[in-house]
Amino acid sequence: MIQSPRGTRDFLPDDMERRRFYESILRQTARRSGFREIQTPIFEEAELFVLRSGPNILKELYAFRDKGGRDLALRPEMTAPAIRAFVNGMSNEPKPIKIFYFGQCFRYERPQSGRYREFFQFGAEIIGAATPETDAEMIAMAIMMIEALGLKDYKVRIGHIGILRRKLADAGVTAEKMPEILQKLDKKLYSEAWPLMEDSGVSREDADSIFETSDTAGGVEVLDGIAGDEAQYMIKVLSYLSAIGVAEPEIDLGVVRGLDYYTGIVFEAEAPALGAEKQVCGGGSYALSELFGGEKVFSTGFAIGFDRVLLALENEGAVSPAEKTDAYVVAASGDVKLKAFEIVGMLRRNGLSADIDLADRKMAKAMKHASSVGSRFAVIVGSEELKSGSVMLRDMSSGEQKAIKIADLPAEIRGH
Amino acid sequence: MIQSPRGTRDFLPDDMERRRFYESILRQTARRSGFREIQTPIFEEAELFVLRSGPNILKELYAFRDKGGRDLALRPEMTAPAIRAFVNGMSNEPKPIKIFYFGQCFRYERPQSGRYREFFQFGAEIIGAATPETDAEMIAMAIMMIEALGLKDYKVRIGHIGILRRKLADAGVTAEKMPEILQKLDKKLYSEAWPLMEDSGVSREDADSIFETSDTAGGVEVLDGIAGDEAQYMIKVLSYLSAIGVAEPEIDLGVVRGLDYYTGIVFEAEAPALGAEKQVCGGGSYALSELFGGEKVFSTGFAIGFDRVLLALENEGAVSPAEKTDAYVVAASGDVKLKAFEIVGMLRRNGLSADIDLADRKMAKAMKHASSVGSRFAVIVGSEELKSGSVMLRDMSSGEQKAIKIADLPAEIRGH
Repeated sequence: MIQSPRGTRDFLPDDMERRRFYESILRQTARRSGFREIQTPIFEEAELFVLRSGPNILKELYAFRDKGGRDLALRPEMTAPAIRAFVNGMSNEPKPIKIFYFGQCFRYERPQSGRYREFFQFGAEIIGAATPETDAEMIAMAIMMIEALGLKDYKVRIGHIGILRRKLADAGVTAEKMPEILQKLDKKLYSEAWPLMEDSGVSREDADSIFETSDTAGGVEVLDGIAGDEAQYMIKVLSYLSAIGVAEPEIDLGVVRGLDYYTGIVFEAEAPALGAEKQVCGGGSYALSELFGGEKVFSTGFAIGFDRVLLALENEGAVSPAEKTDAYVVAASGDVKLKAFEIVGMLRRNGLSADIDLADRKMAKAMKHASSVGSRFAVIVGSEELKSGSVMLRDMSSGEQKAIKIADLPAEIRGH
Repeated sequence: MIQSPRGTRDFLPDDMERRRFYESILRQTARRSGFREIQTPIFEEAELFVLRSGPNILKELYAFRDKGGRDLALRPEMTAPAIRAFVNGMSNEPKPIKIFYFGQCFRYERPQSGRYREFFQFGAEIIGAATPETDAEMIAMAIMMIEALGLKDYKVRIGHIGILRRKLADAGVTAEKMPEILQKLDKKLYSEAWPLMEDSGVSREDADSIFETSDTAGGVEVLDGIAGDEAQYMIKVLSYLSAIGVAEPEIDLGVVRGLDYYTGIVFEAEAPALGAEKQVCGGGSYALSELFGGEKVFSTGFAIGFDRVLLALENEGAVSPAEKTDAYVVAASGDVKLKAFEIVGMLRRNGLSADIDLADRKMAKAMKHASSVGSRFAVIVGSEELKSGSVMLRDMSSGEQKAIKIADLPAEIRGH
């Protein structure tokens, strides 16, 4: 029996209903903040992702050569495609441009809890502005989304990549060596960072001070001891966040994120209950467009790991509303089947969702099917009632039923 | 400059808004008819598509081998994945099962008007019923969808693959030779069909009668001269369609569709104005599940070519509604910026869509930006008005503005 490929999933109707419910919350929140949707292809030139993430990404890509000899790859993330689409088609629009997107991404890795080979991301970018207001707007939307989804146990941490970068540069680290060291610091692997720093000529004293900065976390007061413009910038971002009225994020100067193209504020949200795979959102300000052949444009954005955030919600026992069919129409006998089809058509034209028995079921079995598809009402079409233009309307939860004129059906069903 | 791969497209915000509008009409129509959504992976084992469509499909597939040695392919259509998902996870559900799906499909072919390498399909299936009622329900939904989309110039043709199959069998054609001949008949290539039929021992007289049947098109009266159960079956389908209340499709016994797995009723919808690529919807009843390792289950379904139907709507000048942002908030001076953020947060929490100047624009430029992002109102936050808890509310279409209490803003904006 053919199965779906390893690391991918089929979403059956109950799953899908739940996923669309949460997706629509994200969309609505984005639109309320003035963001508009874009959509890019499922695959791109592989080079696009190498330019963004470095050649190591190739190991994780679903890469293939098409019949025309092009090296393509299924997208592992959507920031690079979004910025490419901006460079190709939106660069003359008035800035800043606020966009969002939602869709499948692909990574060839060992499937495990919260990690799939086909996974879903929701992301947003503000392109063409580099101000504390812009960063605040972006972080506020991330927090509003998590709140709107209804996640209870979460933590948002905000840092500034410039603080550690400057300290490393002051201590003698070259731009070339910087990314590898920052990646170690990001993961708090200080014993692995130290030899790299020592090789770059960093003194033990400077290293300790850098590790201390990387461990700095808490309220706005932890910025008191931090020199430079970055701390002032962060204080401004926090003041705008507070004005917008979202819960204040924690400051964590150790958040540097793994990638080279970040330029300033970086932030992450996590659902601690998820354990090792607890990060549900990550973002920051960056410059990518010039890498893809465009002008240098500053942006800020984030991505939400949709599968993980749904897992976190499920763990918290969150329940999404179930969509019910309004009416299930059954013909009590063969001679009134056409009438039953007429009624189902009329109900649908009146904006109601209506199903109909298609398998010539006997009444008891039809009622059972009506109940299994989750219909609120059954409409029983019988030749006796039809003589007076009526049908029986049965409330599927109470089991009560009464005769009702066909013309009154839509209002009666809607009224409940 | 990196571009999107050949045959793929970026959908920018205006495009995307239009596409989501029409997608939501299809979804809503499906839900009203009691269908529920499923989603399958973007890629599948390549074998799945070969089983459905024969080895010729390989030429058109984006096929690749993953790092684990699996032969995978981007899906070229979604019926096979839907039926695979049914066999794997839904086969014990009460039947019939009514599902729909929407998403990207991929075909490696020369891009041209209405044909893309990444294209979008909307499809629906009723699995586990083989009755005229089921076929009627399916065809009715296809027609309701085309009507709901607002397409004016379209034609639906319905046939029964059993009629030509039986005539061919009676004339001496074996099951093995049948598909190739049917494909020629489907395209009305009679001069190419004839030598194949002659090889199978079909007499010239029988051949002429078969060509005549394949050319039979018109109202229900054209079925009068057709022997066999198929014509009676079609008459029943048409009577249910008429009861549901959709426009009557044309009968066309030459509709046989290209594929082997159809079992009975087949139908197509076309938008004649599209020329060579005029087919916007195709479907019929079929049996596929046993090919994928499940039990034999009869189904009926259709797919709508979303890109083509949008092209047809565009050609007819159809206009979809533009979503506007409710309010664009601007601080008149630096000292009231925090207040502006407070107001934008408040408006969003009240369910309004609100944008805010992030680029420190002067007032005239900010108004221009508010207008370019399509905002209905501008909210101008000035220190004078703030003293009395007010802001200026400017109607962006009339240019009129008046002072208004901040607390009254949501109701005032909503009232327009």
